[in-house]
Amino acid sequence: MNQNEQTTRFDVVIIGGGPAGLSAAIYASRDGLSTLLVEKGLIGGMINEADKVDNYPGFSQGISGIELTAKMYEQAQKYGLNNVNAEVLSVVVAQPLGFTIKTSEKEYQTKAVIIAGGSDKVRLGVQGEKEFIGRGVSYCATCDAPFFRAKTVAVIGGGNSAVFEAIHLSKFAKKVYLIHRRDQLRATHIVQEQAKAEYKIEFTLNSVVEEIQGADVLEKIIIKNVIDGQFSELNLDGLFISVGIKPNTSYLSELLELDNDGMIVVDDYMQTSVAGIFACGDIRHNSIRQTIAAAGDGAVAAVNAKKWVERVY
Amino acid sequence: MNQNEQTTRFDVVIIGGGPAGLSAAIYASRDGLSTLLVEKGLIGGMINEADKVDNYPGFSQGISGIELTAKMYEQAQKYGLNNVNAEVLSVVVAQPLGFTIKTSEKEYQTKAVIIAGGSDKVRLGVQGEKEFIGRGVSYCATCDAPFFRAKTVAVIGGGNSAVFEAIHLSKFAKKVYLIHRRDQLRATHIVQEQAKAEYKIEFTLNSVVEEIQGADVLEKIIIKNVIDGQFSELNLDGLFISVGIKPNTSYLSELLELDNDGMIVVDDYMQTSVAGIFACGDIRHNSIRQTIAAAGDGAVAAVNAKKWVERVY
Repeated sequence: MNQNEQTTRFDVVIIGGGPAGLSAAIYASRDGLSTLLVEKGLIGGMINEADKVDNYPGFSQGISGIELTAKMYEQAQKYGLNNVNAEVLSVVVAQPLGFTIKTSEKEYQTKAVIIAGGSDKVRLGVQGEKEFIGRGVSYCATCDAPFFRAKTVAVIGGGNSAVFEAIHLSKFAKKVYLIHRRDQLRATHIVQEQAKAEYKIEFTLNSVVEEIQGADVLEKIIIKNVIDGQFSELNLDGLFISVGIKPNTSYLSELLELDNDGMIVVDDYMQTSVAGIFACGDIRHNSIRQTIAAAGDGAVAAVNAKKWVERVY
Repeated sequence: MNQNEQTTRFDVVIIGGGPAGLSAAIYASRDGLSTLLVEKGLIGGMINEADKVDNYPGFSQGISGIELTAKMYEQAQKYGLNNVNAEVLSVVVAQPLGFTIKTSEKEYQTKAVIIAGGSDKVRLGVQGEKEFIGRGVSYCATCDAPFFRAKTVAVIGGGNSAVFEAIHLSKFAKKVYLIHRRDQLRATHIVQEQAKAEYKIEFTLNSVVEEIQGADVLEKIIIKNVIDGQFSELNLDGLFISVGIKPNTSYLSELLELDNDGMIVVDDYMQTSVAGIFACGDIRHNSIRQTIAAAGDGAVAAVNAKKWVERVY
């Protein structure tokens, strides 16, 4: 916490310090709102895992995720952003107006809330996975496919997202294995047909990844066939894990309208089902889960949170 | 036009080369779509007028509008973007699939269209206006208010936007004149009441700006009272012109659903009322008209245009 250690009342509290929350923080602070950013981990969020972000408009030579979010954070601080390292436990509607944010550290009162807590990519949980993130292991084909031109890659998963990732990768890679633990995919028929029409994609069903191996970078994976229990090796340059996304909304399920995946439903103004609470970035319904879109969302949420604060108070 | 002079068939044609169109161009080109960007003026669009953009997340020290869009353009070119300097005259739905884009130069066939033509701020059309843009004259308080801390500014206009600009500016400036040509504002009652409650805001009604004067930067304006015809001078540091926005959609009015202001109606995927045509940035309904939001929109439009192309073709 910076100089405002004692202050517990704010115009707006932003939950989450990834690109969506940082963009909201830049806009809210610069617009003259007293703003608190609450982040439970490191400022920057999931994008910090990216060694190189090539598609954030304005950085034509690419930039690392850590550097990009550090710049955003510095920018928000210039305008007086307050921040605290804590986990939000609950958001409660206060009477007659406003909200109470209960965190692992203390409670805050605020006029408006911007939820930008992001989504976690579900991990496989196998040996080598964490070690090779950014060195062959990826959770986003849209982000990283161009780095695997004429390479051999695999996608793990069987839903629409996984199959879309495989199709997307087939435009770049020379070979794409689609590995799924069951005997058929969960993806819709039409999406499966698209993948089957692509000669570069090979389906490896009834199979799970046992281990991810390599020296400096990913080199191969060990696959177990769940029918016969046999192990095999597969040499790879890239492994795209697409086994689900988990938004950080469990503490909000009683308060806000969520979609079937637990994402927060918002309108064009990023307003949730509760007036004065906004949501933006990967945590909202229908996000494309890209840094630039999250940052755009954050600005929209902050501009409309400001209008809310001015209108109601 | 670059090397692909002869090609007239593309996966996606993007209309407009501001931040929304450039972001869409980065995403579409990098995703492997053959992409043509059609811009009638200079690449960069309206943001090129900004000497310093302080609120585009990632540029913590600020960046000029021209430099920012030049970087975006360079980034898109890295991935093989084609572009042509021409005006789009019409977009026609082709049979059995796709679209024909008729421009002032030639016709193009495309599988998907992304409309990112922006909106023009309506100009006052008085002497000195153009000369002092970026040197005291602004069309966006959210962008430029922090540059006028403890300064004297005026807002021209009488609608909700103008009054919101005045309220916003009152958080920074020491004095805000709200100048309107009629004897009452068009803004809704509640918005007017907010402005009246702000002691820094002074209403100057029945008044029009006759001329904007200064040496290096804006120094004063000449105001004419439309009742008695008298002229007066007002010393100012900043003049915010908020007399309307005109989206560049006249050539689309028969094809697409537009809102009452002529903005293009889109869904969460940036898809318009015609499948395969997307719109993004300041030209769409409910845009906050900020560079970062336009860039976010552009990525959303491109990601969904790609899905459309893959699904339908």
